[in-house]
Amino acid sequence: MEEINVVQCGIGEIGAAVTRLLLRKRGFRIVGAWDIDPAKVGKDLGEVVGWGEPLGVVVSPTPKGAFPQEADIVIHTTVSSLEGALPQYRALIPFGANIISSCEELVFPWRRHRALAEEIHGLALEHGVTVLGAGVNPGFVMDLLPSLLSVVCREVEGISVRRVIDAGKRRPAFQRKIGVGMDPGEFQERVGKGGGHVGLPESLDLIAASLGWEITEFTTDVEALIADRPLRAGDIEVPVGRVRGLRQWAWGRTPEGRTISLEFQACLCPDEEVDEIVLRGDPKLVVRFPGGIHGDIATAAILVNTIPAVLTAPPGLLTVRDLPLPSYFAGRKG
Amino acid sequence: MEEINVVQCGIGEIGAAVTRLLLRKRGFRIVGAWDIDPAKVGKDLGEVVGWGEPLGVVVSPTPKGAFPQEADIVIHTTVSSLEGALPQYRALIPFGANIISSCEELVFPWRRHRALAEEIHGLALEHGVTVLGAGVNPGFVMDLLPSLLSVVCREVEGISVRRVIDAGKRRPAFQRKIGVGMDPGEFQERVGKGGGHVGLPESLDLIAASLGWEITEFTTDVEALIADRPLRAGDIEVPVGRVRGLRQWAWGRTPEGRTISLEFQACLCPDEEVDEIVLRGDPKLVVRFPGGIHGDIATAAILVNTIPAVLTAPPGLLTVRDLPLPSYFAGRKG
Repeated sequence: MEEINVVQCGIGEIGAAVTRLLLRKRGFRIVGAWDIDPAKVGKDLGEVVGWGEPLGVVVSPTPKGAFPQEADIVIHTTVSSLEGALPQYRALIPFGANIISSCEELVFPWRRHRALAEEIHGLALEHGVTVLGAGVNPGFVMDLLPSLLSVVCREVEGISVRRVIDAGKRRPAFQRKIGVGMDPGEFQERVGKGGGHVGLPESLDLIAASLGWEITEFTTDVEALIADRPLRAGDIEVPVGRVRGLRQWAWGRTPEGRTISLEFQACLCPDEEVDEIVLRGDPKLVVRFPGGIHGDIATAAILVNTIPAVLTAPPGLLTVRDLPLPSYFAGRKG
Repeated sequence: MEEINVVQCGIGEIGAAVTRLLLRKRGFRIVGAWDIDPAKVGKDLGEVVGWGEPLGVVVSPTPKGAFPQEADIVIHTTVSSLEGALPQYRALIPFGANIISSCEELVFPWRRHRALAEEIHGLALEHGVTVLGAGVNPGFVMDLLPSLLSVVCREVEGISVRRVIDAGKRRPAFQRKIGVGMDPGEFQERVGKGGGHVGLPESLDLIAASLGWEITEFTTDVEALIADRPLRAGDIEVPVGRVRGLRQWAWGRTPEGRTISLEFQACLCPDEEVDEIVLRGDPKLVVRFPGGIHGDIATAAILVNTIPAVLTAPPGLLTVRDLPLPSYFAGRKG
């Protein structure tokens, strides 16, 4: 079978993990790479992602240079903000390859970023490509999975999802994002006002769309979790009284009183790493992932495993709920 | 929005539960019903399903009588065996309505019943209808869900699913099916040779198809669970030494050593009711449903909640893995 030609855009930790995963599977060929980091531009992609041997693909500082030939799919792993990613989509879509993006706000942009979503959808239709936002969270554990689980219910009154992850096991960029090591005032300034995990509102919107619920009350909140004993994560020391992580909520309610409640906790030394989904309904359903689902590994896996579904999907800006069920994909057979 | 016109074929416990569920939701109209049971034929469907008021739909002994007008969807809940259901599909498909069937062997018939599957697929294409086998097991908890969960893995070496249900909470027909109250010899004769739960091989085939695995070694087994103290389930008394339920397995292996292991246990007084999915891979994933997913309720819910996806699906014999993700469906708004 023909190889699937991939362009990697954004070679941070997730992008590099995707590249290494593609190299381990059969049937993928990485034909181009784009990153604006001067430390990466001009280098061989194999060197940048720590593959141990050159891949013959030089990291280009421009989209044009990342398409030495036609590609089937772009894996886009740069920013969380849809506004930030938009110019990149504008530049990429005309090359005619489908795009799977880890941009959190792209997972379900149709309520909070409707105008941007419509622009991307229009561009995608014009160039005949599929554009999809995907990842483990948002995109799977706090939205797609609870939506799917609701299919066993005759009636659903409410959906609660709680995800608790041990930030000590995550990349430093993630630890900084959630405020690890900051003092509470700095946290309030830098994380409390729109930082932290991006995607809870998108997850809530995706669940609501799946169940056909109209959310008329909506609120989010974030609080710092403070170290009550000295902690350490890699190079970051966290003395008593400093921030060891955060807890975030998104909460929505329909006029009939149905509720969606999402809680995300990421910190050093959590009581337990877990994902838990509770459907209050008939029947009531409780699902637990003891140990949780590892965020970075799972996101890289999902981006790759979703490729087959995107290659056969109709053009346009889709969401994960528009596609047939993805599964682990071993790669095409030779 | 227009109402969805439904024909109910087979008004046993599942079919009756589906009818009652449809009546509780907005936007459905039951236009016909078919059953061959002389105790039901000629009666009003409302009386047969215990709705408490007549529905103006008389149970017909023939498919023709169940289509007083065109319908959008047939909910088919009669038998587990595809060979048994085939003449019914042959009779129903020409009426031009899509079919969702609880027939266990229809959930993934493409390996064990390929010729029958091809006949149904051809008929469905000819008449422009979608035919789907669905239910909680097979169709969801032991196949679709583990297939979906594998999407978070970079690598999958094996999938194990264990479903343990308390037969004491289930309908008498189910208790008889799993041999409750039989002596071990009778169990061997009546359940051990092809009775019990139908669908483990189909679940295994569905997982294998989802992951692109070729299963070259395959085996199934069943054993009686014997009461070591007197038990009772409704009218059935189970003295010491008689059968209180069963344990069934299906097990498959690829040439590379990847395995799928499915264990189904249904008995009076199980240690714990639970569904548990374990993916041996990178990362390893453990998912538990404490208390399990109620089989009969969930199957009725799934049959109804899958209607929207089937109404917009292309014609042919599809499987649940061909459709976009279903969710709880409240019904169409008026």
